Formats: sequence, structure tokens, C-alpha cells
Amino acid sequence: MFLYNAWYVAARSHELDDGLLGRTILNQPIVFFRAADGAIAALEDRCCHRNAPLSVGRLKDGLVECGYHGLTFDRSGACVAVPGQSTIPPGARVRSYPVVDRHRWIWIWMGDPARADATLIPNMFWHDDPAWVPIADYFHVDCHYQALIDIQLDQTHSKYVHPTSLGSDAKISTPPKVTREPRAIRCERLMPNAVPPPLFSRASNIEGRADGWTKWIYVPPSNVMFDAGIAELGSGVYEGNRSKAFTIHNSHGITPESERTTHHFWVSARNFRIDDPKVTETMSAIRNTFREDLAMVEAQQRNKERFPDAPVIDVNADSPTIQARNLVARLIEEERRLTAA
Amino acid sequence: MFLYNAWYVAARSHELDDGLLGRTILNQPIVFFRAADGAIAALEDRCCHRNAPLSVGRLKDGLVECGYHGLTFDRSGACVAVPGQSTIPPGARVRSYPVVDRHRWIWIWMGDPARADATLIPNMFWHDDPAWVPIADYFHVDCHYQALIDIQLDQTHSKYVHPTSLGSDAKISTPPKVTREPRAIRCERLMPNAVPPPLFSRASNIEGRADGWTKWIYVPPSNVMFDAGIAELGSGVYEGNRSKAFTIHNSHGITPESERTTHHFWVSARNFRIDDPKVTETMSAIRNTFREDLAMVEAQQRNKERFPDAPVIDVNADSPTIQARNLVARLIEEERRLTAA
Amino acid sequence: MFLYNAWYVAARSHELDDGLLGRTILNQPIVFFRAADGAIAALEDRCCHRNAPLSVGRLKDGLVECGYHGLTFDRSGACVAVPGQSTIPPGARVRSYPVVDRHRWIWIWMGDPARADATLIPNMFWHDDPAWVPIADYFHVDCHYQALIDIQLDQTHSKYVHPTSLGSDAKISTPPKVTREPRAIRCERLMPNAVPPPLFSRASNIEGRADGWTKWIYVPPSNVMFDAGIAELGSGVYEGNRSKAFTIHNSHGITPESERTTHHFWVSARNFRIDDPKVTETMSAIRNTFREDLAMVEAQQRNKERFPDAPVIDVNADSPTIQARNLVARLIEEERRLTAA
Repeated sequence: MFLYNAWYVAARSHELDDGLLGRTILNQPIVFFRAADGAIAALEDRCCHRNAPLSVGRLKDGLVECGYHGLTFDRSGACVAVPGQSTIPPGARVRSYPVVDRHRWIWIWMGDPARADATLIPNMFWHDDPAWVPIADYFHVDCHYQALIDIQLDQTHSKYVHPTSLGSDAKISTPPKVTREPRAIRCERLMPNAVPPPLFSRASNIEGRADGWTKWIYVPPSNVMFDAGIAELGSGVYEGNRSKAFTIHNSHGITPESERTTHHFWVSARNFRIDDPKVTETMSAIRNTFREDLAMVEAQQRNKERFPDAPVIDVNADSPTIQARNLVARLIEEERRLTAA
Repeated sequence: MFLYNAWYVAARSHELDDGLLGRTILNQPIVFFRAADGAIAALEDRCCHRNAPLSVGRLKDGLVECGYHGLTFDRSGACVAVPGQSTIPPGARVRSYPVVDRHRWIWIWMGDPARADATLIPNMFWHDDPAWVPIADYFHVDCHYQALIDIQLDQTHSKYVHPTSLGSDAKISTPPKVTREPRAIRCERLMPNAVPPPLFSRASNIEGRADGWTKWIYVPPSNVMFDAGIAELGSGVYEGNRSKAFTIHNSHGITPESERTTHHFWVSARNFRIDDPKVTETMSAIRNTFREDLAMVEAQQRNKERFPDAPVIDVNADSPTIQARNLVARLIEEERRLTAA
Repeated sequence: MFLYNAWYVAARSHELDDGLLGRTILNQPIVFFRAADGAIAALEDRCCHRNAPLSVGRLKDGLVECGYHGLTFDRSGACVAVPGQSTIPPGARVRSYPVVDRHRWIWIWMGDPARADATLIPNMFWHDDPAWVPIADYFHVDCHYQALIDIQLDQTHSKYVHPTSLGSDAKISTPPKVTREPRAIRCERLMPNAVPPPLFSRASNIEGRADGWTKWIYVPPSNVMFDAGIAELGSGVYEGNRSKAFTIHNSHGITPESERTTHHFWVSARNFRIDDPKVTETMSAIRNTFREDLAMVEAQQRNKERFPDAPVIDVNADSPTIQARNLVARLIEEERRLTAA
């Protein structure tokens, strides 16, 4: 069960620089490309003639030519040429999807095109604002996408999964404050006068204890954005003064490929010491930290398949993830009723 | 759905030089070998005792000895020895199949042995006629066999799949002439005064335009034989004068292994400049050309599995492949009625 | 269909030296470890919170800490700590299994713990008796476990599967004497004045013919123990005089991982020339001999899957394996009635 009327991250923008990109989103194989005017396009990755994947064809002048018999499609999905004949057979077209190129990511709307509203795409200014230094990557993950959402939303895992980078006792001892919105969940965990996570200590010039925070916004089903960091003790960070603070913004596009595989697009950006390559190198440890997440959710996925009907228990720290899953379930149910109507 | 009362290519003859050969044809695992008199034999690849594959046993004096407990079978499939006892249990036999060694290929009849008529095997004299230089190989292909038949029968794909070897505009602009026979389809495409495919230009001494042709015979379900080439302009090739012509004969044995895997046996032979190793090297590019076919039909197969119920449209150039598929469907239906009767 | 009220070999004892060991037994993923007092423990390999495999967690002071959120379990399977909260949620526990460390193997009872009686574990003293030199190993095998039991119980395969080590004509010409017990089958094959298997000739100082024997005990469903060897002609070995005999004891723990995969634990030990490294090297050929078994049963397994409904015939030599399979079937049926009652 997926939510279709939603924006999903489908690619990093530069992936379209070399021509056609084939990628499966929500079980639907799609070919992405730039049309002649530079606008991006997304079509069903299947020639309507003999089922060849269009993504193994050729991009010619912003049109997609099938690599088997040369049928050609424009960005709307209409077949505009059939070699050897002057007429286009009726029905010769493939589905097209709304797509937007924003914040160096390609976003796709998988549901009713009439409902695709680009203003719903979350603001992730730190991807392309020169005041920020982003580290960005893509992982292919063998798990249901909600397992990867869960691990983002629950910081109590950090001590166990990321002991050398993001782990801290304060994340466990401090209960988070969770706020629900109609189509989002916000969470904040303020950790005054606490031992910071090792990665923050290494990247900042703060020695010893600090005033820390982790805040996130979940925009279901697929995006999580973090505002996290540490500040000098008593420097007023909780009142909004970040002059003595070290802030990172992380963003995650966690897109289902299938029920058991997921695309993970992520950016981790900082706005401090932006010209210091040593800090960039220190912060690049986040890549390994995110790989630790993957190892855990992939092990969890394999185990769920080995124990398909096992009961589970909840603990206090599950409140954010349970609320997030409930919200997605409610949105899917709303969509189901909308579609049935 | 396969046709059973038909000859299929199962192996290249030299593959039996080293003993037992196990290979699955139409989902049936079979062991091939030469009996003591040199005649070839094909048995169910399963010992009737404990299911060990006979192909991992030993060939001894033209008999197959099971590698597990030593039960021995003759070319008729009868068990002729059980170690440790003097009697043969009733029912100790395995199925045998009619087989023929012809044109350097091993042919097997998968249906009613009483209907196996070796005169039905197509004439492919260029495989072993000293006037011809054959290039031969075998590929294992991940597709339904009819996808590989289709790509042989429709030359309009050449421009897109084989742009550097067999592709030509003339194959697209010239409609083929298709002739149906009760158990075959013939097709010819005459291309007078046309730019030849790049491979023919390189292998012949003709510069510029030529009189070209591509003819094939499809003997369902599994064989396609080509007569193709180019001749000097106006040299009378269409009236039968091949003294100024460069001819190749290609043959394909396209045998189902399963519903989604196929054995591809092929030969490409020429009768010109037969002693020139440079021409042999030039013509060996056909191997890569056929690999281009495989890449396409395997991509198509994967896509069919990703879009199991997708509708398709037809174009004018599909006439030969549609007729071929209709013929196979009719033969399968006839066989079904014959079996039911 | 497996027998659950039985001891199965789950691991070699030294495998627990480095911490947690995850292994699937009878389709049930299990984590093995040593508790603080050194006693071994076996728990369901699944945290009851979010399904993470406990085997990718950490062993701390004899307790298992989940690698995801840090829930901690003792050797009884009870959750004893949840980070961030002082109470343990009701139902926070995982299944534990009876386990015994004996003869350098870890034994697990997969059925009703109340019936786990460690005296039922067969005596395999040659594993750890200083008078014996064991060669031991573990193989993962792609077959149903009964196929691997069968090949142990039927020595007539040796001539065909192990022609250079254990094969001998005498094993085929001499019928075995089979004795049934309520929960075991015994078999002996005495081969006086016979050509010994090649491996025994190489390892002993007997040249030419010898008085040979092969005896085994099958303790269903999973263990086979061999007493085999050769003695000087007429030295009275059949009356119990082993002073001129060369004896090996082999033991097999053949444990289902799933319906089509099996754990094979084995030991082959001798009590002659125990300080001669050359003899040890000679005897280590048994490893390759057992690999020959695997190649055969794996080929057999693949073939059974290719011929799911093929009928088989029996031969005289099948008597021991048929009796063994009947005994297992009877025990499973008894267990089924016991469970239903």
C-alpha cells in the first residue's frame, strides 16, 4: 500500500545530464530525460509497440527513440514517429508523469496529475544555497521504505547503531516533543548541557558539554528534514541565537522502488566553517553513519521475511514513529476513498 | 505453450565428443550421448531409482552409468544393470527421445516418437559444405523463444539495434513480400540500388550503392534461414545471376529451454573470398550483431515481466512476425486437438 | 515435515567463542551465545520490539543487547532492560531453546522443552577422547536433510561416488544386516578377505586383502555414527580382537536448515598411528570424500525440483534407507498425535 498523490524524489538532477535514466518508482518503471527546452520529463519505461524499455533507447533532440524499432515519443508520452509509415496508430502513447526539478533533486508525482501541486514540495534550501556546504548521495536499500523512515524519526537508535558518530545518551534520556499537523509531523528534542554526539564534537570547536538539539519535520510519506546541532553552553540557542551554534540540515528522500526495495536520496549540509576542507572531511563521516542505518534496516527487513507473522511490542520511544505510520495510513485511506468516489 | 511434434536444435554435434551432455529442452532435462555404434541418443536426465541426473554419471561403452548407485541404461532408456543384484526391477527405464545428427547440429523431436520424420529437418547445407565458410556459436538467452524469433523475422529493427553492421534505411523503406505455406513462412525484401548495410560493404568489394536482398524461410516453431547479400548494380541478381553477388546464409535454431530462457544456436556462412582470413574476421562481427539482438530481447523480456498486462499496438512492419505467431498458434491448436483425439 | 522433539547439532562449540552466532535450524532463526556463567543459550533471533536480528547486536556480560534500540535479553529470553524507561513492557520476551554443549558440538532441542532429555544425545566419545584424532568440519548443503542421511546409510554408492577413497566392490556384493530399535537403526556389513577401500589401504600398513567391516547406528532424525575399518586377515576382528585392526569412527550431525538446505557437521576420528602426521594427512582425504557426497545430493536435489512428480523404483540395496525413512515418518506421526492430544 503506497500513497500515490504525493511527490517522491526520483533522481538527483545531474543524473539526467547524460541522457535517459530508467528507474522504478512505486513498482512503476519510468524513463526520465530532459526535453529540448531543458524541461524534464518522465514517461512509462515501456514502448507501447513491443514492450522494449525506452530507457535502453536514445534521446534525440529531446525526444525518446525506442531502441528496438525506432518509434519516437515526446515528453507528453505521445508517439510522434513510426519508421516506415506516415501515420501514427491510434493509442500509440505511453503514460507521462508530472515532474519537477528542484533543490537538485527530481521530484515525481505518482498519482492523479490534476492534483500535482509543486508548492507541496518541501523547502530544502540548503541543497543549493551558497551559504551551505552539502554532502549528497544515493543508496539503494533492501527494505520497505517505512523501515527507513522509522530509523530517521527515532533518535534513540543512535547510541546503538551509530556509537562513534551520532550516538548520545541525551537522545535516550530526553523525551521528544511531537506535534502533529494535517500533512506533517514535527518533533524536537532539546538537550541542554549535554555531552554532544561524537561527530558534532569533532566538527565544532566546542569541547565538553554543549546545548544540543535535534528537530525534524516529516512530510509523509517520503521526506524527513532535520535541523540539528550544538551550541556553546548558555549561548541562547533555544531562544534563537545561533551565533555560537553549529547547525546541520539533513534531508531525506525515501522513495519506494517496490514493497521491499527503496531509493534513499540524502543531503547533509552545514553552514559553519564552510571553507574548511578538514571539516568537510569530518562531516563526510555522515555517509558511513547512514550506511549503518542501512545495515540495520536491511537486517530488519530480512528478519521480517523470516518471521512474517511475529507479534511486536512497543516502547515509550516509539511514539514518533507510531504517529508517523498512523498519519500515512490515514492519508492512504483518504486517497482510497477519493479514488473510489 | 510449446509445440511438441517438431524438431528442435538441442546441441552442436561436437558437444557430444567428450561424453555426456545435460541440457533442458522445453522444460525437460535430457542427457545426450553417443552410443557404442556412434549413433546419438537422448534420454530423460533422471535416474529412475533416486532421481540423480544421469548427466553427472559416466559414459561407459556407449551406456550411461548413474553416478550415484551405478544403474546402467542403454540408448533406448532401458535399465540393463543394477549393481548387487541380477534382476532388473520392473519399470526400470527412462524416456528416450528421437534424435538426429545433421548439419553439425543435434536435432531432437519432443513429441510423439511415431511422428518423428527426419525429412522435416530443414536443409542447411552451408553448415558443412566445403564451398561455404561458417561462423557458428551458441548463446543462452533470457527470453521467451518467440521474442528471439520475432527479432529475426523483422529486419526493420536493424537500423536501431545494429546501426554499425546490418542496419540500413532500405530495410525500413522497402516493404517485405510475405508468402505463407502450410508449415513455413517465406519473406523477401529486394532493395535495388540501395546503400548496403555496413557489414556487407566491408566484406565485399562493392563501393557505394548495390542491389541488395534479404530473404528468409521460417520453419516453425524454431528455425529461421536467411539468404541475404548484395550484388553489383544491375548485375542481374534478381534474375538469378549471382556471379557479381556476395551471399550469406544464416541459420538459427531457437529452442525453448523454459518459458523464459532460450537456447540460440546459429551459423552464418559465406561462399565468397572463402580463403581470405580478413573477410572471415570482418564477417565474425556477426557474433556481436547477434549479441545486440540478445541485449534487446532480454531487456524486452524483463520489461514484459515488469508490465505483465500492458496492451501493445501493432505497426505495418509487424506483418511477418504476426503471421509467424499465428502459424505457431494454429499448429499448437492442431496438436492439442490431435492429442485430445 | 520435521521431527521437533529431537536433538539437533546446531554448531561446533568453538563457534561461540567470539560472541553471538546466528543460525537457522528447522526454519527457525536462532541466536546462540554463552551466558555469564559460561553456559550456552539459544534464543529466537528476533528482537520482540522491531524484529531486528539479535545476532547483529552485542553480547554484553552474558546478555544480548539488540543492535537497534538496545533492548537487552537474558538467557531465558526475558527482556531485562529497555533504554529510556524503567519498566519492561508486558510480553517483552523471546523464545528460548534447550541447548547442550557436548562432544564439541552444540545440541539444540526444537520441540517441547519439557521433553528435552540430554541423555538422549548419542555418545560420540571420539570427538574429545585423547586416544582419538578427530578431523572435523562443517558444510552447508543445498538439499533436503534426508537426502544426506540416505547417502550415509547406503554404502553401495561408494564405488560410484568415491571410487578413489571409500569405494569397494565388497560393499556392493555383501548385503548388510539391518536391526531395528524403537528409536534407532543399526546396520553392519562384514567383508572378510576383501580388497579394502583405497583410503584404508593407504592409512594402514595392511597390503592386499583384509578383513573389513562397516557398522553404523542411525539415531533419527539427524545422527549417524560409523564404526568402520579393516584388520589383518584372520586376526579375529569379528570376534572382537582389534589389536590388528585399523578403526575409524565417523559421526554426522545432519540438521535441516530449511526444506531444501541442510547443515552438515561431521567428525572422522582414528585411534591408530595417532602421532603420525602423514596418516593424519592421508585421512584428511575424507573431507574431499564428503564433498563428493554433497555434489551428488545437491545434483539430486536440483533434479527432484526439475522433476517434482517423477516416480521412482527401489532396488535391493535400498533396504536400510527405506527403513530409516519409515522410522522417521513413524516418529513424526507419533509426535503429531502427541501434539494434537
